[in-house]
Amino acid sequence: MAKNPAWVKALKPSGPQGSALLQAERDGSALNVDQLAEHLFTNQVLERNAAILKILQNDPVFDKSQNYFRGRESRIEAALARGKRLRQLSVEHKWSEDEYMVANDLIAEPTPYGLHASMFLKTLREQGTPEQKKRFLEKAENYEFIGCYAQTELGHGSNVRGLETTATWNPQDKTFTLHSPTLTAAKWWIGSLGIAANHAVVMAQLIIGGKPYGPHPFVVQIRDLKTHEPLENVHVGDIGPKFGYNTMDNGFLLFNHLKVPHSHMLAKFSRIIPETNEYVRPSNPNLVYGTLTWVRSNIVLNAGNTLARGVTIATRYCAVRRQFQDRDAPKGTKGETQVLNYTMVQQRLLPLLATTFALHFTGRGMIELYEANQAAMNNKKSPSEASRNAGPEELQPGADLLADLHSTSCALKAYASTLAGEGLEVCRRACGGHGYSSFSGIGTWYADYLPTLTWEGDNYMLTQQVARYLLKSARAVLKSGNLQPSQSDNDTARILKDFKRRQDMGAAFDVLGSDSDIVAAFAWRVAFLTFEALRHRDEEHQSWNSLLVDFWRLSTAQAQYLVVKNFHDALTTLGTTKSLDAETRDVLQKLFRLFALHTLESEASEFFTSGACTVRQIQLARTRTVKTLLEEIRPHAVRLVDAWKFPDWQLDSSLGRYDGKVYEDLFYRASELNPLNKVVFDPYPDSKSLFKKDGREQVKSKL
Amino acid sequence: MAKNPAWVKALKPSGPQGSALLQAERDGSALNVDQLAEHLFTNQVLERNAAILKILQNDPVFDKSQNYFRGRESRIEAALARGKRLRQLSVEHKWSEDEYMVANDLIAEPTPYGLHASMFLKTLREQGTPEQKKRFLEKAENYEFIGCYAQTELGHGSNVRGLETTATWNPQDKTFTLHSPTLTAAKWWIGSLGIAANHAVVMAQLIIGGKPYGPHPFVVQIRDLKTHEPLENVHVGDIGPKFGYNTMDNGFLLFNHLKVPHSHMLAKFSRIIPETNEYVRPSNPNLVYGTLTWVRSNIVLNAGNTLARGVTIATRYCAVRRQFQDRDAPKGTKGETQVLNYTMVQQRLLPLLATTFALHFTGRGMIELYEANQAAMNNKKSPSEASRNAGPEELQPGADLLADLHSTSCALKAYASTLAGEGLEVCRRACGGHGYSSFSGIGTWYADYLPTLTWEGDNYMLTQQVARYLLKSARAVLKSGNLQPSQSDNDTARILKDFKRRQDMGAAFDVLGSDSDIVAAFAWRVAFLTFEALRHRDEEHQSWNSLLVDFWRLSTAQAQYLVVKNFHDALTTLGTTKSLDAETRDVLQKLFRLFALHTLESEASEFFTSGACTVRQIQLARTRTVKTLLEEIRPHAVRLVDAWKFPDWQLDSSLGRYDGKVYEDLFYRASELNPLNKVVFDPYPDSKSLFKKDGREQVKSKL
Repeated sequence: MAKNPAWVKALKPSGPQGSALLQAERDGSALNVDQLAEHLFTNQVLERNAAILKILQNDPVFDKSQNYFRGRESRIEAALARGKRLRQLSVEHKWSEDEYMVANDLIAEPTPYGLHASMFLKTLREQGTPEQKKRFLEKAENYEFIGCYAQTELGHGSNVRGLETTATWNPQDKTFTLHSPTLTAAKWWIGSLGIAANHAVVMAQLIIGGKPYGPHPFVVQIRDLKTHEPLENVHVGDIGPKFGYNTMDNGFLLFNHLKVPHSHMLAKFSRIIPETNEYVRPSNPNLVYGTLTWVRSNIVLNAGNTLARGVTIATRYCAVRRQFQDRDAPKGTKGETQVLNYTMVQQRLLPLLATTFALHFTGRGMIELYEANQAAMNNKKSPSEASRNAGPEELQPGADLLADLHSTSCALKAYASTLAGEGLEVCRRACGGHGYSSFSGIGTWYADYLPTLTWEGDNYMLTQQVARYLLKSARAVLKSGNLQPSQSDNDTARILKDFKRRQDMGAAFDVLGSDSDIVAAFAWRVAFLTFEALRHRDEEHQSWNSLLVDFWRLSTAQAQYLVVKNFHDALTTLGTTKSLDAETRDVLQKLFRLFALHTLESEASEFFTSGACTVRQIQLARTRTVKTLLEEIRPHAVRLVDAWKFPDWQLDSSLGRYDGKVYEDLFYRASELNPLNKVVFDPYPDSKSLFKKDGREQVKSKL
Repeated sequence: MAKNPAWVKALKPSGPQGSALLQAERDGSALNVDQLAEHLFTNQVLERNAAILKILQNDPVFDKSQNYFRGRESRIEAALARGKRLRQLSVEHKWSEDEYMVANDLIAEPTPYGLHASMFLKTLREQGTPEQKKRFLEKAENYEFIGCYAQTELGHGSNVRGLETTATWNPQDKTFTLHSPTLTAAKWWIGSLGIAANHAVVMAQLIIGGKPYGPHPFVVQIRDLKTHEPLENVHVGDIGPKFGYNTMDNGFLLFNHLKVPHSHMLAKFSRIIPETNEYVRPSNPNLVYGTLTWVRSNIVLNAGNTLARGVTIATRYCAVRRQFQDRDAPKGTKGETQVLNYTMVQQRLLPLLATTFALHFTGRGMIELYEANQAAMNNKKSPSEASRNAGPEELQPGADLLADLHSTSCALKAYASTLAGEGLEVCRRACGGHGYSSFSGIGTWYADYLPTLTWEGDNYMLTQQVARYLLKSARAVLKSGNLQPSQSDNDTARILKDFKRRQDMGAAFDVLGSDSDIVAAFAWRVAFLTFEALRHRDEEHQSWNSLLVDFWRLSTAQAQYLVVKNFHDALTTLGTTKSLDAETRDVLQKLFRLFALHTLESEASEFFTSGACTVRQIQLARTRTVKTLLEEIRPHAVRLVDAWKFPDWQLDSSLGRYDGKVYEDLFYRASELNPLNKVVFDPYPDSKSLFKKDGREQVKSKL
């Protein structure tokens, strides 16, 4: 294809222009974008991010213009080059870990150093003895040792106890033999392993004197430090292309009776005394409990941000895109209607817009709670120590804040990441045909996000932990016999008691008129479903397996309650929103109602079955309240997404451009950046060649 | 990476082996796979498909082993080579159009000839005069002219009337000037245009004497027949990568005052008399009506097949994959449980398995109805002619079978393709972590299918047409005043009358005990929602836009009714299933109930609001009937997917292999086919190079 000829360059989109339409949107709302952004992130963070953005944008290795065109091999090459440069910049600018993460977020695709910089370093820090840190961590921090965290196996994901890789203690020479006895024992899915790592933390079944002691972590060198070739008796490589995340080198790893010294078992918590071959039990096996909670809270916070990227793109594009006239428009009306004016589009997009804020405030609330709890723990006996003394099916009501926090983080991780993942696909489809173009910027982002629904606890598996906790709590409430609220009650105990006290007289929540009644209705439904499940399990003795679907529904209900509660708290707790203009505060309040009532009508049958609402209220919510909220939020939609402050460079989307130049950008990328247009193909079935002319720099003919 | 060493080659997955597990599944059910397959497809079709498969498998150009590894450029090169070879084979073996389509289905990815072979040829055939066919069609059938159908524009998708490309009649020299006045007028998304086509059928606004006459089709040469370079004043190219469908060359096209002769406007329906410059109106503008209905019926049939691929893969893998022990398993139980035994997995997969059959029978029912109607039309005045005399908001009850069929096809196209698209993603996730690997075979398939939710009528847009038709029908029923069933009633009129007659006394459907009552309950809900919507529109005078969400719900309800009804009819109509064994018939009956009751409980609030069911019935469906059905269908799951008879070569999935050798195949593809493992990267941030060693045949360094 010739370069764009002059007559093409002269063309403009038909009016009104996207830039004018977005300007009109921004003029039509008094929402204070900068103030809301400051409230969400603080100005300090926003300024720091802008400074990092500038550094990245000026570096050619981070040029994104070919990202969407590359195949896996060139993507991984580009990602490795970027990872290297990021590390150099990090040293040069003395970036903190947070700043390094911001740079990664702006680049917006993983690099082959991803798991080195997170799980490998983290595990060495948390589970290594001082000597081990000296030996491994310093070199790892200096990128001489590049590592990964090898837990999952080809045949074993969620069930860590089922891992097959063995580490057998050899009392004679004080070593461990690492071995993969079967093909399903192959470590699999391990990030940073495929091409980058020369070391791995390997989770393997410890065996001493023929007896298994469960999975333990071992530091194992896997590739030569000079040639980067695999060591003998190690088989390692990349597991191949994936639905997304293709800039990461997820890898496989197998061992053939490989020996490592005694010092390579990470020994902060459990260890072997080499002199006596004696195994020393971990002092506190629940210590990771807290870390997991912290990781999951961050997933919740991030889910809001992740979804907000898609909502930003879709909202801006739906304000630029026009299609058809309103059927009731007066005759003679010219031009087409902005797609964002259609209620069917609003019904899909605006609840997701509300969800972004709901998840943001929930994630923040969770992290605050976690930190407060950590601080409190430092002053007293660890609550998890206390809980270890209770049997698996018993729990003191309100006694265990950490267990409550753990359950909360499970429920929210599963719900928030599902909402974000599925919400991104809704955003992509709301963009119509162009949503399917890579240049929409949503497809790749969605595909890269999907693993979050599986890792750090599969979203379906996690719901069992939530149900288990709620059942325990309900048993404790019933057992204690005292339904009066007490100082020591945690939130779960409180809502279960409230329900039990009022169950017979029933609830009468004013969900259409009172925000705190909305929260109460969500709590009521959770308590109802909890006691229902308890009856099935303890009275009817139904099998655990037969109740999994009920447990999943229960956990989802619990998560929805928690999000509604956190969102509500964020808007009402004294002071948190007093820095905002009245109009901005008012719009946030409407977003809260939209999120809550939209969720309520989607789950209508559980609300009326539990008696939390009447059928009439649900009908009114659907036919009146939600409609009105959509109408009232619509004028602020563009400003609301602006408050997320995503730079265009980060979004890398033709449709989501801040300036609305959607069609110009789609055309520019297609006609000027697209390598396919440098080739003239030969289309005739009988010709021998595929090409008439190939103007690409490297000519390949793999066929 | 070195080749797999001997000690790796010796490894097997831990037992029990996948092959043994699948064999046990097949042994555990008496469902007659071959009989059911014959019932679904006929033996003649199955044998024909097998013969074509053999031809393709023996041809190296169709080798699939590198498909998942390739980037867009090499994928399109491979697809073009395959398209060429397919054409050659088609000539060689004298394939019918059906047989050519089967070959395309087995290859399972589009080629750059896709739109030439379908829409281009079809449009020439249907809209060309005999002279035009002689001039264009013969060469097109011979692949001298390679074409596409250029309708959609950068700024205009669903709204065909909004197209900006103009074709201005020049009375002086009897030509048309084709022109793109703006950037948004660029033809966009046009399949087969990006690299392949040398001709296009262009839909452009016809202008005669300054007056617009709406969109009309023009045959336009766009590239040189020898050099394949774009002609002067034509700008054409590929629009770039997409979320899927990347073996198709969707393209763009712009014109700069390009002249084409009078004879290039396809003139079977409307034309210009060159001598008088007079425009002749089409004799019957509704003729495409029927074709669209036929296309959509096929989408419904195909949706079942599309989803069945994902369900086949997920069901087989979930029978091979084991994870955790059942929590209630007796102590000492060895090994892990097949994932398919978990009710949470059954709840996700088995209703989708039921959906595949529901959609298959519905699609087949639709096509039969369409054909019967076409036959009837040939004997009398065209019903669409008759309906043209009725006003836009009026309709004789039952008078218009074609309009009913059209509405039916809109509702079902939207619902079926959404079910299939979203269902595939559910299947992918049900495969856990490995579902995310490209080797699962679901991700690419899902991504390639997604455009179906948008083309041939966007799934949300279509629901308005359904609502419009139902409102018209309801008005006609009310206007006639006669609620007694009559011979001339179509099905819609019948269910609306039934509802009106019994509305006051209410319904009492035995949805848990009677299959025909299930169908009646779905019909009742449709009628209820129709009259509700009618009240909002005609009595409360709510705007069309404000009712779009209600219309979408109404259309979905209508589609669900139609699927339930068609599935029920397929099992009860005399003779259709009498060739099946009792056990096979019984399982199909259970699949019917599962589909219907699972849908009912998902949409519970509409069923109880309309009075079609009681709250108690819905609770029982959820907590008892559906659970029992899942349990009863579970043992037949593998045999049921076997009946779809997908060859492994077509599925191209490690997880969905007929023989259950899941882990061996994942490992083979990752370790032996993956080109990344032929490279040794240099992982150190300070090194200048990305590679230590590059064993790939072509070394690229695009960085």
